[in-house]
Parts: sequence; structure tokens; C-alpha cells
Amino acid sequence: MSLNTFGHLFRFTSWGESHGPALGATVDGCPPGLPLTEADIQPWLDKRRPGLNKNTTQRQEADAVRILSGTYEGVTTGTPIQLMIDNTDQRSKDYGDIVRTFRPGHADITYHQKYGVRDPRGGGRSSARETAARVAAGGVARAVLATLAPQVRIKGYMVQMGAKQIDRSRFDWDAIDGNDFWCPDPAVAAEWEDYLDHLRRKDHNSVGAMIEVVARGVPPGLGAPIYGKLDSDLASAMMSINAVKGVEIGAGMAAAALTGRDNADEISMGPDGPEFGSNHAGGILGGISTGQDIVVRFAVKPTSSILSPRASITVDGQPTEVVTKGRHDPCVGIRAVPVGEAMLALVLADHLLLDRGQTGGVRGRIGGG
Amino acid sequence: MSLNTFGHLFRFTSWGESHGPALGATVDGCPPGLPLTEADIQPWLDKRRPGLNKNTTQRQEADAVRILSGTYEGVTTGTPIQLMIDNTDQRSKDYGDIVRTFRPGHADITYHQKYGVRDPRGGGRSSARETAARVAAGGVARAVLATLAPQVRIKGYMVQMGAKQIDRSRFDWDAIDGNDFWCPDPAVAAEWEDYLDHLRRKDHNSVGAMIEVVARGVPPGLGAPIYGKLDSDLASAMMSINAVKGVEIGAGMAAAALTGRDNADEISMGPDGPEFGSNHAGGILGGISTGQDIVVRFAVKPTSSILSPRASITVDGQPTEVVTKGRHDPCVGIRAVPVGEAMLALVLADHLLLDRGQTGGVRGRIGGG
Amino acid sequence: MSLNTFGHLFRFTSWGESHGPALGATVDGCPPGLPLTEADIQPWLDKRRPGLNKNTTQRQEADAVRILSGTYEGVTTGTPIQLMIDNTDQRSKDYGDIVRTFRPGHADITYHQKYGVRDPRGGGRSSARETAARVAAGGVARAVLATLAPQVRIKGYMVQMGAKQIDRSRFDWDAIDGNDFWCPDPAVAAEWEDYLDHLRRKDHNSVGAMIEVVARGVPPGLGAPIYGKLDSDLASAMMSINAVKGVEIGAGMAAAALTGRDNADEISMGPDGPEFGSNHAGGILGGISTGQDIVVRFAVKPTSSILSPRASITVDGQPTEVVTKGRHDPCVGIRAVPVGEAMLALVLADHLLLDRGQTGGVRGRIGGG
Amino acid sequence: MSLNTFGHLFRFTSWGESHGPALGATVDGCPPGLPLTEADIQPWLDKRRPGLNKNTTQRQEADAVRILSGTYEGVTTGTPIQLMIDNTDQRSKDYGDIVRTFRPGHADITYHQKYGVRDPRGGGRSSARETAARVAAGGVARAVLATLAPQVRIKGYMVQMGAKQIDRSRFDWDAIDGNDFWCPDPAVAAEWEDYLDHLRRKDHNSVGAMIEVVARGVPPGLGAPIYGKLDSDLASAMMSINAVKGVEIGAGMAAAALTGRDNADEISMGPDGPEFGSNHAGGILGGISTGQDIVVRFAVKPTSSILSPRASITVDGQPTEVVTKGRHDPCVGIRAVPVGEAMLALVLADHLLLDRGQTGGVRGRIGGG
Repeated sequence: MSLNTFGHLFRFTSWGESHGPALGATVDGCPPGLPLTEADIQPWLDKRRPGLNKNTTQRQEADAVRILSGTYEGVTTGTPIQLMIDNTDQRSKDYGDIVRTFRPGHADITYHQKYGVRDPRGGGRSSARETAARVAAGGVARAVLATLAPQVRIKGYMVQMGAKQIDRSRFDWDAIDGNDFWCPDPAVAAEWEDYLDHLRRKDHNSVGAMIEVVARGVPPGLGAPIYGKLDSDLASAMMSINAVKGVEIGAGMAAAALTGRDNADEISMGPDGPEFGSNHAGGILGGISTGQDIVVRFAVKPTSSILSPRASITVDGQPTEVVTKGRHDPCVGIRAVPVGEAMLALVLADHLLLDRGQTGGVRGRIGGG
Repeated sequence: MSLNTFGHLFRFTSWGESHGPALGATVDGCPPGLPLTEADIQPWLDKRRPGLNKNTTQRQEADAVRILSGTYEGVTTGTPIQLMIDNTDQRSKDYGDIVRTFRPGHADITYHQKYGVRDPRGGGRSSARETAARVAAGGVARAVLATLAPQVRIKGYMVQMGAKQIDRSRFDWDAIDGNDFWCPDPAVAAEWEDYLDHLRRKDHNSVGAMIEVVARGVPPGLGAPIYGKLDSDLASAMMSINAVKGVEIGAGMAAAALTGRDNADEISMGPDGPEFGSNHAGGILGGISTGQDIVVRFAVKPTSSILSPRASITVDGQPTEVVTKGRHDPCVGIRAVPVGEAMLALVLADHLLLDRGQTGGVRGRIGGG
Repeated sequence: MSLNTFGHLFRFTSWGESHGPALGATVDGCPPGLPLTEADIQPWLDKRRPGLNKNTTQRQEADAVRILSGTYEGVTTGTPIQLMIDNTDQRSKDYGDIVRTFRPGHADITYHQKYGVRDPRGGGRSSARETAARVAAGGVARAVLATLAPQVRIKGYMVQMGAKQIDRSRFDWDAIDGNDFWCPDPAVAAEWEDYLDHLRRKDHNSVGAMIEVVARGVPPGLGAPIYGKLDSDLASAMMSINAVKGVEIGAGMAAAALTGRDNADEISMGPDGPEFGSNHAGGILGGISTGQDIVVRFAVKPTSSILSPRASITVDGQPTEVVTKGRHDPCVGIRAVPVGEAMLALVLADHLLLDRGQTGGVRGRIGGG
Repeated sequence: MSLNTFGHLFRFTSWGESHGPALGATVDGCPPGLPLTEADIQPWLDKRRPGLNKNTTQRQEADAVRILSGTYEGVTTGTPIQLMIDNTDQRSKDYGDIVRTFRPGHADITYHQKYGVRDPRGGGRSSARETAARVAAGGVARAVLATLAPQVRIKGYMVQMGAKQIDRSRFDWDAIDGNDFWCPDPAVAAEWEDYLDHLRRKDHNSVGAMIEVVARGVPPGLGAPIYGKLDSDLASAMMSINAVKGVEIGAGMAAAALTGRDNADEISMGPDGPEFGSNHAGGILGGISTGQDIVVRFAVKPTSSILSPRASITVDGQPTEVVTKGRHDPCVGIRAVPVGEAMLALVLADHLLLDRGQTGGVRGRIGGG
């Protein structure tokens, strides 16, 4: 977890800029013997791909991933897996005028101040395009889970856009894949559609969103206290996604308002082991998974690139106004859904291996038999 | 940031259990030549110390830190600094009955399931007592900042207890150290006092809290994109604190409800460099510090150890009721304030060195001169 | 330094198999603002390239490196640098018969036992072809040194082939690049030529070698005691090269035979700082550079792939005889010279940044002024 | 493997100076459920302890280790194990005069140049006393091996002192513990005794040594290519020991003189799996264990602290002569034997867990059944 590498034992190093020839991820520490081809990874990239509908950027990228190493005859060999995605729709001419201007809300100014030099084309390394590398790496993580913990199910969805939240009483798993927003509440999805249309076409504005990602079937015992806690790594993972400003587990920020009596997830004995009367913990106690659903939410700020003018300065320190033309998502939160899923898969795969390494899957028994 | 080590270049490994003979932290990577004695560290531990007032646990611990290595004649030598704190008030007899019972909301059950064995005395390794080691290590981090970035100021305070938030219009820096809650709003502090008194004495309950930690004077350019982003490391740092369920930067979770126009922190040129019209970013863009205040908030859940009975099970899978007697904080959020400060100091000191290592403090110029 | 990543702060992750589509290295932590194009890296790869003369494998690989990320307009940006080399002369049909046989001295059997699956084409990941990725990464390390420590000079050469050593009294720096063996003693180089010709054509055999790599002009103070000592990292670096069986610094293994009086490198004061009467230490004391020449030697075992039959077994446990046809180096030590240089450059660049990060280049003064 | 931490998954951080109040090691990543008390560790420390016989320094240190954390009722809990050893015989007055002088062959000058400040008492952090921490950590590693790979046997011994080597034809395992030198050849041990007596009493000199450490019963499949190769980590481990100048595996440096035909370890099928006709490989192919004996040798330079005067300089750059009085080992190689054993145990325990984490102990089958 240093600079451009994420993970302990199962880890990946991401590389590439928005408008360079390619970008990718080197996945290291993958178990050998797992079935893995491009076909296992491409569907997740397709889900994140820009240009899929009118609510996301109209940049057209095939985002076709190639596995350059680490597999033989469709099976992982335990050696590094290089995942490469060519950049095909670069149009760098669009970005010529921003070389000397700092866009408010963007990393332009901080990259300049830290490095003294930056690749201005499409945001360079700070572009959300980097998340394609994560999603590709997440595809490998899913292959690990499919073999080592096949009961695990991961699902992400949007629970809030702007001020408008979903109605939890209408929550429908099957609706999630049925709209452009990965929204489990079809009624609110229709409202979002209208709202976003207005923002983009009339208001020249953008809006934030809240994403929830859930993992079911996670075995108890994952997480490495104290500084490799499962929730600590999830917080790091989600906060590293572009535009994310907050991360919460289970009851999350709302836990501040609870009393101990309300917050306690009471325990009983079920047929297959311990059961919990509620899940304020979000599936994690003391940094270790309980076996309950892992529930993570994160807030995505509104796209900073908007057609409305904002005050800023140039490299020379002169005042200017910035209007960001080009092909931008009015709500980047939409495409953050598959990215959040990928990060959750990556953290879980890593901790499965880490736990197996340290404990060998030791599990203290509960109950008789 | 693996198991019990936190940090990249300036890092510490924490060790020890609640009721063992001692606990501590090994700080590695500290620059040489810094003035450092126990007197530089003890005040921060005193601030976190239990038993200071009736709102925190009545366990009495001197929490006297000793520096066992890494300094010579009061100056750091660049070698590992061992910080040790003896456990003096252990009373392990208090905890004898919880060996075979899982307290709801505690890590008892997950440690059991992960490790098959656990030290039940006072929560063992999962005890909030571990945070003393962080606060001690944070004292070293502050010594680093005092020399390398002496303009940095770090301050934590409580902004919410239960449902009751501070009134930002009454925010008073000077009030923070003047009440038992590190509360910048004296009026609400008085209300909290009554509320907590009621919870502890009448209601046998506990309550959550929200903490805000701010760093002023942080130079621009700190943070290592993509997976060592400053906000990503802060999220990991805060989420690793016991009982924390959510972390946010700047506008945080509220960013989901904002539009791009509102969220943009407009930039202008001031006498000393860029200035920003607002700070929704919380001082971080693209994972790198902007020079604005770094603003981090985190939610602390209510203490799970309460006198009210909660349903649970035993190791044998039998149903039971748990009433946690003993000396517990009704609002652990209070003592989380100095812990949050320490983690912020640790992340900043680490990134100062990491940035110096990679860039040598390269700073792209803005403006003429 | 875990699995396929080498280095602390300046580090690279190598990926790729001998007969996959490509291999490469992802260099992370590079300082921004350094001039870097393919032309800075290609010459070092050309030096390692197979097929250059009759003494190395006749496999033909252009080994043309491409920089896919991390630079903009010929300057490093501080983001990950992806170096990719296409595999063009793969001829995987040559290797069909070795899928089920373990070649003595090769990693065939251990990869099989560890991973249960392996890419048999050309040795897969265990092929010496992986060293091309190191040499490419070493080119970036040289660019770092060229800017941060321009006085550093790195040079490798062969000092022994089989039983025949160079005569140190004939040592000639200028001769090193003038023969096929990077040999500083032209007289012995001529003998080696005849000997190798005989081995390859008549004896169907191969032979080991000893390589020495020297760095001049290294500033004092590099190295991170105790487990990131400069010599410890150099030992790890050189031992990780294929076929290397031993590494020594300065007097090396011969130090076992010395007395303390003979071994002491006496110190005097020169015009530019301390000077040493000898260099048994190889430029490193206590894991930290002294400013003297860094001197590392490593032994390369003879190529295991030979035309002479050797007894072995198949995957089924049946006895067999192995005769390795194909295009193999009779003395892999020759091509190990640029690889050793690259690893030395990588270790030095990493420690320059690591030292700058921790100490800021603190240097205790010696002498007046 | 950064600064003061060694290891990947099972790792330890060493801390402490020669003349501070204590030193120790924090062992992290230990599996839970292993029996471990001080009695499991103390015997190894006793073996390394100074003052045991007239051939080692007469400094008297009890070297009593205390376990301060990580165990409960004599069993490891999976949390960090703090091992502390008090320094009891410090006599720092002995060292007052060396504060401003650089002893030839010592780290005095490099610590001064790197850090600008150093603890001069007994060499501070660069003292061989740090190896006590490794030996203690090695005791934990042995406890891991005792449970997870109980067939593993580790043994170190001296094979050369000065110019005098053992006669391999007289090699006697049972003799190793029967003399002061851990020498498997009793005849040569008697000669060494006389020689060392002469060096110490008459010649005021010291001498180097060669140590060999062997591990039997190591399962095949340990080692993480490419940069966590088993031999690469062993090289790093041994080279990090004070005074070590060279490390070799199997045939080692002598491999340079071998031909491919001679060097090939031919393979046959035995009753329990593959067998090898020789062990030039030292039990490691491609960085992975073969199941043969792991054989590592390392050279220890002669003690630099001798009573014979050597030329040097002071901090002021003035010439001086250094005669190192005090209590020093005439042959530090003797006490390096248990240190080498400890490092071998540490590397093996780490790789057992690392391999279990990544592969789950996958082992490709050889032969039928």
C-alpha cells in the first residue's frame, strides 16, 4: 500500500495516464491454478465503460483488456498477471488549453505543486480513467473468490444522488441492473433520470452521489488487527477512488447518534452458527469479519468539470475563469459503482490469503458437535 | 500498513494487550537530530489518560511512557525508538467471567473465530488501551513536524455527542481545552455533561460521538497518489481506531448532496500563493495536500460495554445475557480526540518524509517573482 | 521486496514470461522532472541482448523497450513508469517435449511442486529473459543517479570463467568494452574465447563465471541499518539474478582468512574528506556507504541447459535422460554483467531516495572549515 | 525488509542499542495457538551469550528474555510478540574516549556521516549486541516450525577460522556442540583453540571465520520468485548480520569454476519422491526449495576492535591511533553461529506462511499413486 500498489499479499500495482498509449495493473500474489481469461475480466470493465448511456461521458473507449502474463492455457500460474488496456479515443487536442490553468476541484494544482511537472492531457494520472485498472484487477480478485470462497456475492448500487435518497422499503435487488444508475429503487431511478437530464442540458451542472457496496457470504475471521483491519483497508480502498470524500461501515456516521443499547447487535445461536439481531457493525468487529454482510458506503463528490464558469488562476498566478468543455460525466458516482465493487473484491481476496497465511484458516469453534 | 505496523517511511509497530505487563510502539524511520525526551510525549498521553474525570473510565493508569532506544542525550539518532508504557492497574479478576461469553459489539467473537484463542482480560489486544501506543508514537510524529514543518498546528475536538451537535456559529478554539469533552461550543458542552450523567447513572447506557481533527499550515504537495493518497491514508488511520465506523474529509458524506457549482472551491491568487474561496475539499485534491486546512471527521460508536443486559451466546453456543460491569467510558469518543490528533500527526510526518524522499520537495511555482 | 517487487521507495515490479507476448517492469517512486526517453534505456538492453556474438544464445530478440506511462514530453512526472518489451522470437515449438520432464538444475521441478502448474515454454517466469526487465528498470535508476548523484560511475566485468581468473596486474578499464566477455584483462579474454569455443562445439558443456560490479563516487551515508543495509540489499539484489549462487562485498569470503590487523582499512584525512588505506570493506561499514568504491562480486553457475545427457525424471516419476537442445548461452555469466550493473544502479537509486527521505541528506561533518 | 523490519508475513522489528536500558524484537504475524514461553527462547540466547568461555568477550550479560505481549497462558494469540532483553552490564565508562574517534572497520564513521549524531556507547545500534534480538525472534520462528513443519532441523557450525578449514572427511554432527567453536571437526577445533589463544594473548589480533548453516527436512515449494526468492532472502538475512562480508548457497562461489556437466544435480525417483545425486544447488532451484538440505555459508570478518594500534582520524579530521581496549571477541564468528541459525529459522518460518497464503500448500504431484 505504497504509492501505486494496493494490497498485502494479493496486490496490484496500477500504472498509466488518461491519454498515454495504455494503462493497466500488475496483479501479484495470485494463487496458482485458477481459471482466468480475458472473458472473466471484460464484463466488469464493460460495466464501468464510458459512453454506455447518455448519463455518462460520451468518450468512447473499448476498454478491451489483454492478459500479457501470469496465465498458461487459461489458468493462473502464480506469477504476476499483467492486465493492459489500450487507450484508443484520446483526442488530446481537446485538452490543449488547460495546460496552464488550474481547474477548481481538480488535481491540476496539487500535481503541479508536488511534482513541478504534469501530464495535462485528460488529467493524466489523476484521471478517473485509472479506475479501469482497478476494475480489471478486481476481475482477478473475483476469480480468487470464486475458487476460495465461492459463496461470496458482491453487489454495489447507488443509494443517493444529490439530495434524493432511495426509499429502503422499495429496495429491490433485481432492479439494480435494470436502470442506468444501478439503483435498487426503480421509482427514484426515474426521478434521477429527469434530474440528471436537467442538470446536464439546462443547468450545466453536476451532482454528487452515495454508493453502497455489500458482500454476502464472507467467512468470519478476515481482517488483520490493528493496522490491517478489514474496515481500515476498506476505508483506504474506497477513499482512494477518485472524487470520494467519505467512507462508512454499517451504521457509519450515524453511529455517532446512537446509544449503546440501540447499537448492540445482539447474538443468538442459529443452525449454522452465530446469528445477529441487527448489523450496525456492518459485518466487522475489531477489524475482523463476523460472517454478516459487509456493508460499505462512500460519498462521491459532484464532477468538477462543468460548463458553468468557475473562478481560478493560471500557472502565472493570473485570475481566470474556467469552463470545462469536453466529455464529462454529470454524475461520476454512477461509474463509481463497479469500481467500489472491484475494491471490495480486492480487499476480500487479499485478506483471504493473508488470513490463510497467518492462521491457516484457524477457526475457534462455537457450539457443540 | 500491515498487521500491526502503520506508515510508509516513518512508521510504527504497536504491541501489547490491555492486561499484559506493558504495551508500546516501536517507531522506525524517524529523522536523526530531533530533540526528544519523555517530556515531549507524556503530555499527549496525559490527555488520553483514563480516570481524568467522571466522564471517562475510572481505571487508573499512570500511562508513564519510557523511551528505551533511539535517542542519545535527548536527541533522536535515526534508529528505532521504543516507547513502553507499563500497565499498572490491571485488576484482571474483574474479567474472569467473560472468558466464555461473547459481548455484543465487542471483538470477542471475531478474535475467537479468527485465532481460536484470545486473551480475554480487558479485551486483550482489541482493547482501546492500544490507542495509548498510538498517542505515544504521535508524540514522536509531532517532534518531526516541530522541526520539519513548524508552522503545522493540529487540533481535535468533539462536534457531536448522540444526536446533539455543536452550533458552528459559537465555535471557539479557546474553549476546546476548557471542558471535559474537548468541545469548541461551551453551551453544548454543558448539555452533554448533563446528558452523559443521566446515561451513566440512570439509563445504564452509552452514546456515540463525532470527532473533527484539523491540521493547519500543512505545506502543499503531501500525499502519494494513487494508493498512498493523503486522504486514503487518513481514512485508514482513523478507521483503525477502536469503535470508529466512518471517516470523511472536508464536505465528506454531504458531498453526495452537492452540485458541482456549489462544491467547487474557487481559486484566487493571494499574497503568499493560491487561496481558495471555500474548503469542500478538506485540504486535499487528487490525494495531495493543497495548503488549506486538512479537515477530517470520524464517527465513534457508543461503548458496547454497558450495564443494560444484551442477549448473546457462550462459546458453547448457549444463549446468555451480558451485562458488562467494570470501569468503562460512557462515551469513548471523548478519549478518541487525542487519538485522532495523534493519527493525523503520524500520517503527516510520514508523508513529509515520503515526499522529501521522492521529490526532494520539488514545488512547481505559481505566479511570478 | 515481496514476490515480484524490488526496492523500498524507488521500486519496480517485474512481470512476464519468456514466451508470452511481452514482459516488462513497472517502476514506481521515480522522482519527477528527470529527462527520460527510450533512448536512455535501450543501450543497456542492447548490452544484455542475446545473439550479439557467438558466445551467447542465438535467440534473436530486438528487446526494444517502450515507455507506456510516467513521462510527458520526455520528462518523468513522478507517476509509475511502465517499461514494456515485446517478445518477438518465441519459437515455442522448440520446447514442446520438456512439458513433462524436469531438467536438472532448472526450476522446472520446483515451479511444479510449488504451483502445481507452470508455463513450460522457455522456462516461463524462471527464464533468464526476466533479467531484461531489470536492465530496463536499471536504465531508469541510472537516470535518477545522473541527476541526483552525477558523479556516480557503475561498471561491471567478468573476473573469472571456470577455473581461469583474470590477472589483476593487467587490469585495464578501457579493455572491458573491447571483448565479448566484458573482461578487463585482454590476455585472459583470448583464452576464454578458445575455452568457450571448445566447450560449446566439442564438449557440449557450459561453464560458470564470477562477475564484479563496482560503483565509484557513491556519497557516504547510503544504507538503512539494520535490515535495509546497503550490503544486505545488494546481496538480495544479486542473489535474485538467475543462476547466481554467491555474493560478496569487498574482501568477501576471503575475509574469513584475514586477521583484524590486515583487514582494518586505516583512515586518514584527505583534501576532500576521509581517505582509506585499503578497501576490504568494499565501501560499506555497518550497512552504510563510506564513500569508497562499492565492490560487489557474484558467482554465476554454469548453464544447466547442455547437450550432454543428464539423468532425470518425468512428471510421472519415470526415469529419463535430458539433453537440452535449443539456443542456450554456454556461459550465462557473460550476459549477467549488465544485469549486475542494473541491480547495483537500482539499489543505489533506491537508497539515495530513502536516505533523503529519512535524513534529508544530514551529513555529520568531519574536519574543520 | 525495510530499515529495522525483516520478513514478509512473519516478520520482526528489532530495536535497541548496546548500552541503552534494553533491546528487543517485536514479532508480528505469528500464527495463533502455538505453545510459547520464555523457556522456548532462552536456550538459543544462552548459546549466543557473551562470556561463556574464554574465546568470547568477557562482558557478562544474563540476556534473559521476557515476553511482554502476544501470548496468553503459554500460547500465542496471533498478536504481536514483544521480546525484551535488559542490558545489565553496560559499563559505559569504558567507551568515553571513542566519542570523537572513528575506529577503523567500525560503523562509527558511517553513522556519523549518515545521521550527524550517534550513540557511541558500545557501538550503539551498530553493536553486535543487536543480534540478541534476532536470536530471540528466531526462537519464535522455531516454535512456528515445530508446529507447522516439525521435521525441519536447523544446525550451524564453523567450517573455517582464519586460513584453517575443517576436514570434511572428519565431519561429525555430534561433535558440534562439544567444543567452544561449534566445530564439526574436533581435531581442527583443538588447533583453533591454540591459534585463538595466541592471537588474543600474544598477537593482540583477531581473525575471521566461515559459518555454514543447514536446514534439513524443508518441504519443497518454499520461496517467492522473483524478488522474494528463498536464496535472495537468505542472502539478505545473512548479509545483515554484523561483520558478514559474503554469502553463498550450495556450491556457492565455487560454482564459477564448475562446468554444466559437473554442476547438474541429477534427479531420480525415490520411495518418498524425487531424489538428487548431489546438492550443488544447496536445496534451492529458481528461488524455491527442492526438499534437499538448504545449505548456506557466510564469511565473518575479523573483529575490528583489537589491541594493536591502527591509524585513524578524529571527528575534527586530526590523525590519531586507535587501540581498542575493552572486552571483545577475538573471533566474532563463533557467536555468529546461533545468529545464522536464527536467521535461517526466521526466513523459513516466513516463507512457510507466505507460501501457505498464496498457494495454500498446492503441490504438483510427481509420480503415480
